[in-house]
Amino acid sequence: MEDLKYDTVMVRYGELAIKSEQVRNKYEKILIKNIEAMLDLHKIEYQEIVRERGRIYVISEDKRAPAVISNVFGVVSTSPVITTGPTLEESCKVAAAIGKEVIKDGESFAINARRAGAHDFTSQDAGRKCGDAVWEAIKDRHPRVDLKNPDHEIFVEIREERSYIFTGVIRGTGGMPLGSQGKMVALVSGGIDSPVAAWMMMRRGCEIIPVYFNNEQYVDEAYTQKAIDTIRKLKEWSPGHDFKVYEVPHGECLRTFRERGNIRYTCVFCKRMMYKVAIEIAKKEGAHGIITGSSLGQVASQTSENLLIEHHGIDFPIYHPLIGLDKNEIVDMAQRIGTLDISVRPAMGCQAVPKHPAIHGRIEEIMKMESEQVDFDKMIGDALSRARITIM
Amino acid sequence: MEDLKYDTVMVRYGELAIKSEQVRNKYEKILIKNIEAMLDLHKIEYQEIVRERGRIYVISEDKRAPAVISNVFGVVSTSPVITTGPTLEESCKVAAAIGKEVIKDGESFAINARRAGAHDFTSQDAGRKCGDAVWEAIKDRHPRVDLKNPDHEIFVEIREERSYIFTGVIRGTGGMPLGSQGKMVALVSGGIDSPVAAWMMMRRGCEIIPVYFNNEQYVDEAYTQKAIDTIRKLKEWSPGHDFKVYEVPHGECLRTFRERGNIRYTCVFCKRMMYKVAIEIAKKEGAHGIITGSSLGQVASQTSENLLIEHHGIDFPIYHPLIGLDKNEIVDMAQRIGTLDISVRPAMGCQAVPKHPAIHGRIEEIMKMESEQVDFDKMIGDALSRARITIM
Repeated sequence: MEDLKYDTVMVRYGELAIKSEQVRNKYEKILIKNIEAMLDLHKIEYQEIVRERGRIYVISEDKRAPAVISNVFGVVSTSPVITTGPTLEESCKVAAAIGKEVIKDGESFAINARRAGAHDFTSQDAGRKCGDAVWEAIKDRHPRVDLKNPDHEIFVEIREERSYIFTGVIRGTGGMPLGSQGKMVALVSGGIDSPVAAWMMMRRGCEIIPVYFNNEQYVDEAYTQKAIDTIRKLKEWSPGHDFKVYEVPHGECLRTFRERGNIRYTCVFCKRMMYKVAIEIAKKEGAHGIITGSSLGQVASQTSENLLIEHHGIDFPIYHPLIGLDKNEIVDMAQRIGTLDISVRPAMGCQAVPKHPAIHGRIEEIMKMESEQVDFDKMIGDALSRARITIM
Repeated sequence: MEDLKYDTVMVRYGELAIKSEQVRNKYEKILIKNIEAMLDLHKIEYQEIVRERGRIYVISEDKRAPAVISNVFGVVSTSPVITTGPTLEESCKVAAAIGKEVIKDGESFAINARRAGAHDFTSQDAGRKCGDAVWEAIKDRHPRVDLKNPDHEIFVEIREERSYIFTGVIRGTGGMPLGSQGKMVALVSGGIDSPVAAWMMMRRGCEIIPVYFNNEQYVDEAYTQKAIDTIRKLKEWSPGHDFKVYEVPHGECLRTFRERGNIRYTCVFCKRMMYKVAIEIAKKEGAHGIITGSSLGQVASQTSENLLIEHHGIDFPIYHPLIGLDKNEIVDMAQRIGTLDISVRPAMGCQAVPKHPAIHGRIEEIMKMESEQVDFDKMIGDALSRARITIM
């Protein structure tokens, strides 16, 4: 049997629909630009992208297009669609052909018909006629009509200028179009969590500026490579939007702290230092916040008390999208994003982590160390001036 | 057929297992106390709760127990279990009885057998013998053995002192035992989002101090009632841990701002005021952070720019567990938590929300208003002194 020629991708988007018309217009334009960039990235040819009544239609016969477009932030779902003329006859013919292709012996089906515009028939008419046509085409396979829980549902949308007929629905990533919100600095390490956190904020519309703090002598090359590869993977979700990646040397400042301060506070100090440098980068880049992969209680040092200390004196929004999630939920997302395989590669993680990190840290103690033992401002300045910037 | 007598609930817990022994011990004790409190809340009788090799066993014949315990934070799953002596004969007898109860005509089954301790047989022996016994008991129903994807899996765990035999597994809420982390102030309104945010942090181990800001003349009674009922619903997830609920009058301060400031900044000002009052409450109560239901871009005023302004000068951790989630994900969680039905009840939400809220707010503008037009410190003091505290 010859394959049916799906010629269009129907794109549904969700939360946008409830915005004011002005905002919606702006967001739809961004969404379309992002779809174009994603198609270009995957070298998928298309003729045109059209907006119509809260839907976007991508005219393309490339079979990969529906799945690729479903990965554009803001897309709720996609369907490969066959278009035809807006008559009952043409619609029935296509519905029957689709039925013939997908419905197997003894399976059930239903027609879901809608109509908009001026026609001399109703939606009910369309549903009945298309149902008859499908039945006729496959009656030797003993089909059943089941409106409640069919094995196959064939959708027929007849509009003013053409009909759209389809059966499959591919779930999209949801969220909002990337670029519809402000920029954020995303702290990305070689671990599982931080890329998931960055991805979640990208999915809510933020462009990110990935920052990797290189702990130098305390990690190995493989660890740094994991971070870089993770950022590259995130970039695949962001076609059309450059990544300005900062790699900030962080080993010397850890060494200094370990020599002069209470070693049990190393992780708290490290976090505070990263926040302060990240805030400087955010201000320079016009970003609106910092994204971290912190999750409460996942490791011993991630207590609510230590997080309180980490935030002390930090007058800038620090977002922890994973703060209320379980590890298995985070791992599932990392798998879906495509970063998990990279993050679990063997590597030597940070060796500056003390054997017994402070769990119930005292804020006065770390403040005293910071003011007496280290020159914080100089450290921040050094880190920034030595940062390596790469455009991806 | 007489019902089988399930006499024990097997409780599995996850992330705890990877903590150090000392931390694990502490967390397990909290978990057991929380299970006791949950059982008491539901008036479920039990004889004993025992810890054994990374599992908790609740000796209870109450059929509601497994589902109720699965709602205790930290529990990954539960199973209703029949216990018997640690011999092959006794185990086979119970496995056969369970098989007889659950396996229907033509269905497939598998035995999943484990063994720990000193016995004169292996796990394989146990699996084979129990499988034979089940088969024998139901052979007239044409059963099939399917090790890969069985309709029913019967688990046989033979330990030193007794055997545990079961088939059903109820998924738990996961997370960490409530009380294993510090306290947090949770801002709870009459809307869908904020109770979900509070619940997520409870699930990560935090006791919460719910704070409801009553916008008085700008909302109706029904709206306030929704907030109160929502907090009551959250309390059901927290047996054994009192809620100290703050109801803070917020209408006058909104009115003052609207009279003197730029009305388009009402929502930003309102948030900032809530944060400042909440931080005072947190400090008084020894809480480690503030929880909000903010989600990026969900409504027009929740832009990254406005969030930046909201955080300006706020030197305390503000947690937004929903910041990276989509509305439909939040709604699904609200359904599961049991707050959705309350949150969607009809009520008059805040009428102080301007028709055209500032979307790209300017930080200088709001700072100027705060310093020149309103007496912030006095407002905070007034709000705190007029707050009504209820213990739930």
